[in-house]
Order: sequence, then C-alpha cells, then structure tokens
Amino acid sequence: MNEWNRLSAAEAARRIARRELTAEALMRSCLEHIAAREPAVLAFAHLDPDAALAQARALDAGPLRGLLHGLPLGVKDIFDTADQPTAYGSPIYAGHRPAADAAPVALARAAGAVIAGKTVTTEFANMTAGATRNPLNPAHSPGGSSSGSAAAVADFMLPLALGTQTAGSIIRPAACCGVVGFKPSFGRVPRAGVKPNAESMDVVGGFGRTVEDAALLAAVLLDDRRVLDEAPPDTLRLGLVQGPDWAQAEHDVRTCWDQAVGALAPKLARCEDAPLPADFADVAAVQAALQAHETARSLAHEYRVHAQRLSPALRALLEAGAAIDARQVELHRARAERWRRETEALFERYDVLLAPSAVDEAPEGLPFTGDPIFCRPWSLLGLPCVHLPFARAASGLPVGLQLVGRQGEDHRVLAAARRAMDWLA
Amino acid sequence: MNEWNRLSAAEAARRIARRELTAEALMRSCLEHIAAREPAVLAFAHLDPDAALAQARALDAGPLRGLLHGLPLGVKDIFDTADQPTAYGSPIYAGHRPAADAAPVALARAAGAVIAGKTVTTEFANMTAGATRNPLNPAHSPGGSSSGSAAAVADFMLPLALGTQTAGSIIRPAACCGVVGFKPSFGRVPRAGVKPNAESMDVVGGFGRTVEDAALLAAVLLDDRRVLDEAPPDTLRLGLVQGPDWAQAEHDVRTCWDQAVGALAPKLARCEDAPLPADFADVAAVQAALQAHETARSLAHEYRVHAQRLSPALRALLEAGAAIDARQVELHRARAERWRRETEALFERYDVLLAPSAVDEAPEGLPFTGDPIFCRPWSLLGLPCVHLPFARAASGLPVGLQLVGRQGEDHRVLAAARRAMDWLA
Repeated sequence: MNEWNRLSAAEAARRIARRELTAEALMRSCLEHIAAREPAVLAFAHLDPDAALAQARALDAGPLRGLLHGLPLGVKDIFDTADQPTAYGSPIYAGHRPAADAAPVALARAAGAVIAGKTVTTEFANMTAGATRNPLNPAHSPGGSSSGSAAAVADFMLPLALGTQTAGSIIRPAACCGVVGFKPSFGRVPRAGVKPNAESMDVVGGFGRTVEDAALLAAVLLDDRRVLDEAPPDTLRLGLVQGPDWAQAEHDVRTCWDQAVGALAPKLARCEDAPLPADFADVAAVQAALQAHETARSLAHEYRVHAQRLSPALRALLEAGAAIDARQVELHRARAERWRRETEALFERYDVLLAPSAVDEAPEGLPFTGDPIFCRPWSLLGLPCVHLPFARAASGLPVGLQLVGRQGEDHRVLAAARRAMDWLA
Repeated sequence: MNEWNRLSAAEAARRIARRELTAEALMRSCLEHIAAREPAVLAFAHLDPDAALAQARALDAGPLRGLLHGLPLGVKDIFDTADQPTAYGSPIYAGHRPAADAAPVALARAAGAVIAGKTVTTEFANMTAGATRNPLNPAHSPGGSSSGSAAAVADFMLPLALGTQTAGSIIRPAACCGVVGFKPSFGRVPRAGVKPNAESMDVVGGFGRTVEDAALLAAVLLDDRRVLDEAPPDTLRLGLVQGPDWAQAEHDVRTCWDQAVGALAPKLARCEDAPLPADFADVAAVQAALQAHETARSLAHEYRVHAQRLSPALRALLEAGAAIDARQVELHRARAERWRRETEALFERYDVLLAPSAVDEAPEGLPFTGDPIFCRPWSLLGLPCVHLPFARAASGLPVGLQLVGRQGEDHRVLAAARRAMDWLA
C-alpha cells in the first residue's frame, strides 16, 4: 500500500509538479488514512470524499495553478466555504451554507489546493471544545481552538491545514499535537469570510509537519515570495523570553527549554535573556480583557438572538467582555500600543525570540483544550510565531517552544525556524 | 400632515422614551416620505415597509431597549442583515440572504433601532456607482460609497443611517449631501458581517442631520457613554491642515475654508497651521496603494470565481492591487506606522484638526461619486473624523469641512464638532 499521505507537502508538491504523482492519488491516499483513523481522532466537521476527489481530478486535468497544486488542505470550520457547510463550531450554524469562500480559502484554491474538508474548531474558536482527540493519545486534548487542523496534520490525514489564532489557537494545538504551527504577523493575511473574534488580534495561519511545509502555505497566504527565497541563516541572535508567567511552566516544558537552550547556544551569535517592558507582567491580563471585550462585540448577533444556544462558558465570557468600561478598554489599548513599540526595539538586538508555547503537554481529558497564557503576549503584540515541535515529554506526548519574529518579518522567522529545527534535531 | 420624519433623531428618541410618539408613527411618517421621494432619489437597495412597521410595533409593545429605541435606521447594503437581502452593491450577490446580522446591526437592534431598509452602496463599497441621486439636485452624485445612507438622511427619509469608510466613503457622501458624517477611530466598532475591503482601514460609522444625532448612533456603535456625556468645549486648540493635496481644492471649498477659519478664529485658544510629517506629500498615494492591495486580497473569492461580473474598474483595481510586491507593501505599512506616531504627537498641541472633506461640491453626473483624496490621510491614520455641513456652494449644493480627532478620542471630536457647528451657524 502506498503512503503518499506521509509525504511532506513540499515533496508531494514537487512530485505533482513533475507529474510523477497525481493530485487524485494523493487525495485518495489521505482519504484512505482518514477512513481508518477518523473514528478515533474525529478531526473533521465535514468531509465529502467524492467531492475532494473531484477537485483533485479537475486539478490533474489542468495546468499547474500554483504553489499548492494538488495538495489536500484542511480548513478550520471557522472559515466560510462555498462548497461545504460551515458551522463555526456552534449548533447555531449547523448546516449553514455560506455564499462565498473566505479569502484565505480562495487564495489557497487559486494556488491549486484541494479543499479536502472542514476541520473541527472549538465553539466560535473560543474555549468550549469540539470532539477531536489528540491523535497521539486519545485520552488527551489536541489543544484548541484549531483542534481538527492540528490533529489532522499530526496524524498524516492531510499535509497542510488552515487555522486561526486570537490567543493561542494555532501555536498551542501545534504544541499539543507535535506539528509546526505558524501564526503570521497581524494584518498580513486577509480575513474576509473568517468568523471574527477579536479583530485587533485575529490572525489566519496554518499547520504543517515541517517548517518547510508551513512556509509553503505561508507563502500563499502572505503572497510573499520571500518566504520561499529566504535562506536559513548560518547563525542567529536569539533573545530568550520565558516571560512573566514562566512560573506556570510544568516540568516537561522546563526540561525542553533547558534542552533547547543547551543545543542552540553553541550555534548562536547571541543567546541571552531579552529585557522586557517594565510592566509586562500584566500582558496576559490585558490581552485576555481586550479579547473578551472585542469578542463580545463581534458576536453581538449571536448573543442577542441565540444566547441560549451558546455554551455557558462562552456566554459568561461575552458578558464579562461587554461589562468592561470603554475608558478601561482605551487604557488597555494604550498599554498594548506602548508594548508594541517597546518590543519592536528588541529586534534591533535579536533576530528572533525564543518563548514557551504551552505550559505543559496536551491536557488530559477533552473538555479543557489548555491554557494559552504563553501565547497571549505575542498575539497581543501581533508578532509572527512558529511552533517548533522538537521534543517529547516523559509521557511520550510532544512538547516544544516557539520562535517569535519581528512584525512583518514572517520570512525571517520561518527561515530561522528551519535552521533551529536542524540544530535541535 | 405630521412630519415626524423631520424630527432629529435625538428629539424623536426623547419623545418615544416619554411615550409621546410611537415608533410606528415615526416609521410610518418616514415611509410616507420615502414613498413620495424614493422614485427621484433611489436611496434604497431593499425596503419592506410592512416589515419595518412590524419591527416598530414590536418595539412599541415592549420596554425601552436603549438609546435608539424606535428610531428608523438605514443600513448600507454592505452590512449583513438576517431579515433583509444583502447584495454588497454587486450583481454577484443579488438576492443573497445572510445567516446573521452584522455586529453593528445587532448592536443597533439591541439599542432599539428599527432596521428600516438597506441603502445603496457602490459596488463592494468601491468606486462604481449605484443608482442613488443627490436629493438636493438629481443631476448630481450623492457621493460614495455610502451613497444611499447619506442621501436618505439628507432627504429626511430616515433620521440615521450606517455607513463604512475605507478612503472617504462616509465623509465624502456626507459632504455631497450636506449631512453630518462620523467616521470613528479605527478598530473601535466591530466589523463582523461587514464585507471587508482594506482591513487595516475599514471603519463602521454613520450619518445624522445634526452632530447630536450622529453622536447618538456613535454612542451605541462605540458602546461608550462618554460620547453622550462629554460637554462641548468652551474653546478649542485647532490645528489647520489643508494637507499636501490642497491644490486640488476647488473654488467653493476654498471659500468655505476661509469662511470657517474666519468664523472660528475669534473663538479659539489656538488656530494655526499644524506641522505635518516631512514626507506627508505621499500620504494619499500610500493609502491608495494599501487599499488596492488589501481589497484585492479581501475580494479574492469574487475575483477567482466571478471576475466577469465585477465592473471593469473594480477588476482593474484588484489587478493593480495584487501586483504590488510584498516588499513594497511593507514599506508602505512602515511609513503609515511612522505617520501615525508623528501625527499622534500633534494632539499634544491641538485638540482637533480642521481639514477639507472633498475637493468640490457633489460631482455632476452619477457615474463618478467623487475623489476621496482629502479623506485618504485620516483613513490611513485611523483617526476619528466628523464632517461639518455648514456651507453652500454658489450652486446651492452643500459644502463643508471635517474635524479630525486623536485616535480613541471619538467623544472629544464629536463634542468639538457640536461646538464648532454652533460657532459656524
């Protein structure tokens, strides 16, 4: 039996471009694996194998479309799709059929991707879990909110998948499932047709099993050739940022941190603790408050019309967010803006920052997808992040760390991540 | 015959709150006026009088909901509405029925507004005109892109209406139709369910016939009591900003400028030319490039699937925007960010800035809704703007100027606008 589904996205794309592999054969291989594994993983909110194969055949019959030609792409069910139902992880929208593709889906289709299926999201990409299980241990959460996308890529169901992050919804499930997650700089990937949470922080990104694969998807989403052309650097100036909430890191994450710093230090032109803004201890609280406030406003319709069909946890979050006074919101915004300026200056001294991705390995049990606290700072600041899945906890579940780049330098943080993964191997 | 439709929004709200006027009577009065005038003005993309009256009766039968209780509100057809078709000014979406209200519509409904109808927008809120005529002279454009909203409010069809601005789509139609237009600070009003153009600049705002009316709507959209509570100031420190493209101002706008400065100067604590960033001459070009680039990405689906149903002008804009190199886009973003910082510092010395709204009175003919060049700087910088409709051109068509406030100080620019309108009366 072939295992095309185990090819990296980059390798599969090369073979398809050389007509050594068809999009249909690749899609079929993925579907066979999905058929075997989906009952245990539950990564999909919607899957129509025949429709996916038809898309693949149509691509095989035509000219090469772009960087993703023939690659099966999972799409988090928070993105509108014109040909597949989109429920945003909520019973309110069960069976909803959008009139159009979300812009990132359209960009992926234009680049030749097969929109293979819709992957499970938590409720409106917030904290109430969907059905997905961690493919590495079904008793554990895959993380959230991009749960199905991370799980599908980790389990070799699909080579690539789209996600979104407002607090930690790409980096954390990547960490839980042991794949590369990439959150671009704020404001670089269009969000038309993506259900909003907190507009000042929502970012579209994705998952791959290698940095090269994540970069392939990023090049399409960002429409930026530099993402492919930037050579991995020979050395790096690395700023270490355990951050103000490091006390919450569990044993396996601390071990992983020490392992990474030990392995990287000999390769680095600089490796030292990066100085943080004086009052950065409040960063997670400020991010959480702004997220709750903005999400309450984005979901104004659902709260007004369907409050009883929201989970109690989400309802409580929306009510807490709506209760924050406008004056307080402006103070939070002003601090965030100052922190953006102050951390921007760090990138004169460091090429990238190293930071924890999650407090621990994937949480046991499904209802809690985990705490995004280590991702909140970078989501608030809008900086590009790459999760590096290079280690295992004592349990065998994956752990890792994230690299954080300068705003707008997505190509550089991805190139640095490629090199860092070599050094950590 | 009653003329409740001529009441200001604030006065109508007071009478409804005291149960001296019913929402139904007000809506009926507006509908009678619409029936008489709509054939000449063509402000509406969708209007269902019975449904509007049913909403009004339901409000009359219940408790006071909020600041907009019983007020008929026009909604630009770029906002999704769950109970009314939403076509975004494009034949692609003729008859489209969204699953949900856009967040600003939901906020207005929660505050008691009657969603009276959908108002005409240009194609996807870009430059290709809809059918609406200037209610003051049907041979002239109402301006765009929020054409129907501005025209409906100007013609006493409705007391209030929602609009959006990316370049000049609120301030310019307000100027063309002689009403108050308010564009809030960037990022303060949620945009869920509003068709995106350029996400770094798209802002939801609205129209009223007085500053007080516009502020009533703004208080709801911003969820900020300060908008109502801020007292109009006794004096102002005013920075004058004709801006780098002042040479394009036509005679009537120059006359209006001189008239305003002459009338205001004696009242002001400071009144002087405000210093602009050194390279601000490029601001309109940078705004236009970023807008084209981001709009091309937001409308990726429509371009991919429906290119032949886009107007040639929009198709050309999307192609020009898509052709801008990622490196160039980053340079534009960096300049915009620097200009934001540099202009922020102006507000240490000035409470508000005075700037032109449009190069001339409403253009003759319908196809061209006018040049937004004088609005581009403030849209790029994300600053709150209020159009002051205080003057007439020689032709009798309205002209006016805009006040520009500090980011996040929407309440202060609205209070300043109230006072300025007194001084200019």
